[in-house]
Amino acid sequence: MTSNARNVAIVGAGPVGSLMAVYCANRGWNVHIYESRPDMRLPENKAKIQNRSINLALSVRGLTALKGTGLALDELIMKSGLPMRGRMLHIGREGNLVSQNYGVHGECINSVDRAKLNEDLITAAEALSNVKITFDHALKRADLDKGTLELQNKITKEIVKAEADLIIGCDGAYSSVRNSLMRHVRMDFGQEYIPHGYCELSIPAKVGADGQPEFAMDPEHLHIWPRHKFMMIALPNPDKSFTVTLFMPFVNFEMIHNEGDLLNFFDEYFTDAVTLMGKDLLVKEYFKNPKGSLVMIRANPYHYKDRCIILGDAAHSMVPFYGQGMNCGFEDVRILDSLFSEFNVKPTKQGDADKSLELALQAYTDRRAKDLKAICELALNNYIEMRHDVTSPVYIMRRSIESWLHLLVPAKVIPLYTMVSFSNRPYSEAYIRHKSQGFWLGVVGATVGLGTAVGMAVAGWRNRRHLKDTSDLLKAAFLTAAQSVQKLVQ
Amino acid sequence: MTSNARNVAIVGAGPVGSLMAVYCANRGWNVHIYESRPDMRLPENKAKIQNRSINLALSVRGLTALKGTGLALDELIMKSGLPMRGRMLHIGREGNLVSQNYGVHGECINSVDRAKLNEDLITAAEALSNVKITFDHALKRADLDKGTLELQNKITKEIVKAEADLIIGCDGAYSSVRNSLMRHVRMDFGQEYIPHGYCELSIPAKVGADGQPEFAMDPEHLHIWPRHKFMMIALPNPDKSFTVTLFMPFVNFEMIHNEGDLLNFFDEYFTDAVTLMGKDLLVKEYFKNPKGSLVMIRANPYHYKDRCIILGDAAHSMVPFYGQGMNCGFEDVRILDSLFSEFNVKPTKQGDADKSLELALQAYTDRRAKDLKAICELALNNYIEMRHDVTSPVYIMRRSIESWLHLLVPAKVIPLYTMVSFSNRPYSEAYIRHKSQGFWLGVVGATVGLGTAVGMAVAGWRNRRHLKDTSDLLKAAFLTAAQSVQKLVQ
Repeated sequence: MTSNARNVAIVGAGPVGSLMAVYCANRGWNVHIYESRPDMRLPENKAKIQNRSINLALSVRGLTALKGTGLALDELIMKSGLPMRGRMLHIGREGNLVSQNYGVHGECINSVDRAKLNEDLITAAEALSNVKITFDHALKRADLDKGTLELQNKITKEIVKAEADLIIGCDGAYSSVRNSLMRHVRMDFGQEYIPHGYCELSIPAKVGADGQPEFAMDPEHLHIWPRHKFMMIALPNPDKSFTVTLFMPFVNFEMIHNEGDLLNFFDEYFTDAVTLMGKDLLVKEYFKNPKGSLVMIRANPYHYKDRCIILGDAAHSMVPFYGQGMNCGFEDVRILDSLFSEFNVKPTKQGDADKSLELALQAYTDRRAKDLKAICELALNNYIEMRHDVTSPVYIMRRSIESWLHLLVPAKVIPLYTMVSFSNRPYSEAYIRHKSQGFWLGVVGATVGLGTAVGMAVAGWRNRRHLKDTSDLLKAAFLTAAQSVQKLVQ
Repeated sequence: MTSNARNVAIVGAGPVGSLMAVYCANRGWNVHIYESRPDMRLPENKAKIQNRSINLALSVRGLTALKGTGLALDELIMKSGLPMRGRMLHIGREGNLVSQNYGVHGECINSVDRAKLNEDLITAAEALSNVKITFDHALKRADLDKGTLELQNKITKEIVKAEADLIIGCDGAYSSVRNSLMRHVRMDFGQEYIPHGYCELSIPAKVGADGQPEFAMDPEHLHIWPRHKFMMIALPNPDKSFTVTLFMPFVNFEMIHNEGDLLNFFDEYFTDAVTLMGKDLLVKEYFKNPKGSLVMIRANPYHYKDRCIILGDAAHSMVPFYGQGMNCGFEDVRILDSLFSEFNVKPTKQGDADKSLELALQAYTDRRAKDLKAICELALNNYIEMRHDVTSPVYIMRRSIESWLHLLVPAKVIPLYTMVSFSNRPYSEAYIRHKSQGFWLGVVGATVGLGTAVGMAVAGWRNRRHLKDTSDLLKAAFLTAAQSVQKLVQ
């Protein structure tokens, strides 16, 4: 540790806290991470730790922030990541498969194991000489003006005191740092639960022809069973199994009392999945695993003077439906770090009130709020898209027009999913742009509709024999419409 | 105490907690109130206790709940209440006075001293044989399933345990009971600060002709200095002084650095008030008194099984601009009590899970939410009304038409203020009705406008000499309009 360097306390050694530690250490700061849970890397602790479920989908924002450490952490994490190039919809009782690509150029999001990613990041942070990690210590309270922390050793139960020039809260949705922050600033704060919960299940690997384990479904997709009021999803794991998550209203969970109820329900809605899961495993996992709740948390401001800031779920817990929770948390880290540079924050502490650090934290609150609001809203909207819209003809038409326009005029029309998952464009900008693109899509839709109608009439009147089906006509109408739009927007 | 009676722990001996204790005691329950502050009635504690400022305006809802105890608590409190029959606007620099009555039948709201009211209610509760109060004990946490409370003795610092069948949280905006409740239920929760703060000042009594203290302004009004972006108000006290509260954006408070800034500001906006306050007292109080913040808090649900419920500010802290905070808290108590009757909750505990109590608490959450949402919104809207709208001609016209229609067709048109302050009609119903009355007011406004215009034209053309001013004409137009509306709505 450097003796005159800035002392930073990071509360929480989750993915966001560990990454923040690496960024701070890169700046020459002394970093001490406090984590309330035991060290998850030790075999004896694995069983004790109740890991967060729902697989992570790592995409561009997360990868950019990992890469920004200069330690090739993106490559490290991607070693065990499984690329998913689209959604695989399981339609109807029979589970008819329909693939919808995520990107128009084959871009992928990546299924990663949350525990593995977290362990890798803890190890990467700990490897740095100016990072220290103390496990089994839970923050009780922090006096942000004095820069003191009171922590409880979870094993001995004794209270330990610590000091820091800057306290960074990466301690999740039920953040203790945020609670302390609320005593120092007039914080606008909200928490809302959606009426839906989730339950984790699994589809095991099957035994292949060569006796080796094999994926039971296409591993290059995020599988979705969209059932309108509820849905089930599955993400691939390196051991060839799938982690399955059933999302539905709590009232529906409460209607399943016993094995019979469960199997009836699955037979009716997820026939193909039951076969892949196996009834015994399904029953065992469904009744063993907790029914988790989904909370949205918003806060503002995120900081107090030059003393404290909250990042990740502590500041903006969102529902998991855009796969952006961790990506957004990692982006928090990257953006905060870029503000440290922009405001020329020094490696050593500058007097009792560090103006440049305060300005950087203030700028973070000022600039980041609208993006965090946007992604929380997008994540919620995406639940309806995933469980319902994906099967609607209008949605599919809009989506295909949008993708196709993106290929024609890539600078003018960009699908929302591409902006959110495959770019670092600010979330709020992506959201605004998505809304304004609605206009062009309307123009195209109208032109296509009109062209088709006229074409059909003409075909019916003069050329019945030459146009047996309408597909050629439709293609022609599409092309005409696209050309006119291309002229309009260029 | 009755040995087999239900044991209720009430956290907080504020006005709502004390009143709830009386209601529970009336049901034959054993009540134990825990209050974190010292006994405010003891002279040695008066200085220690930082009392909540902003005078209280007791109106019908509060009085109804006080009366409902059967102990004539309404009469007790009203002994030191000062009726205010309207607003007195101090317009412009000179403070020209304009009175606006609150009710069309001379109804009054009542200025009461918060500390005095609280003390009276504590004494009333304590006088009952089945109520016990423990001061200086702060709730740390509650296990609602076990029905246990952990409290800290604020003097000895030791942790004390307690038990209760039902825990009622009346512990204000930063409620500890609510924090425990949040660990047991998926609570939607929000807290938002408005960008305005407040500072308490005073106008002392003046010496009358007979040497006795006298009010420096009309004591039968709530005085308002509406200054559009900010405002000052004053409420009378029994000692003939006025408690004055300046509400304005924090940024404006921050622009007043010294005596010169303060006096310039007051001279510009509150010329008449400066004379009444006296410059020395103004300067002393302004710089001594804290600049308080104003928070809005919403929660849902309010209860957990048959174990816990939160009332008053703990459940719905609102901004003070409708004078309904305490009235609404008292109404919470009355309504909860009426649900105990409706669901036939017994004086003794019925087994480990008391179904009728659970149903009563559930009904409270289900039925009360929309009313609490409505009053919080109304309170916020009323700030704009008080600081700005009250001086606008359109507002004054609408208000006078509404009052006047209320006299004509009292069952059909009721001014919002009357419904909120002078009735026990559910807040949400009052709000909805107020919105729908907009239609009739539009009809009348249009008729009046049309009638006036036609009348003016006719007068100008034929009868110029006989109608020197338009007042007769206006009256005629009003009458015509009202008659037509009367026909329409009856």
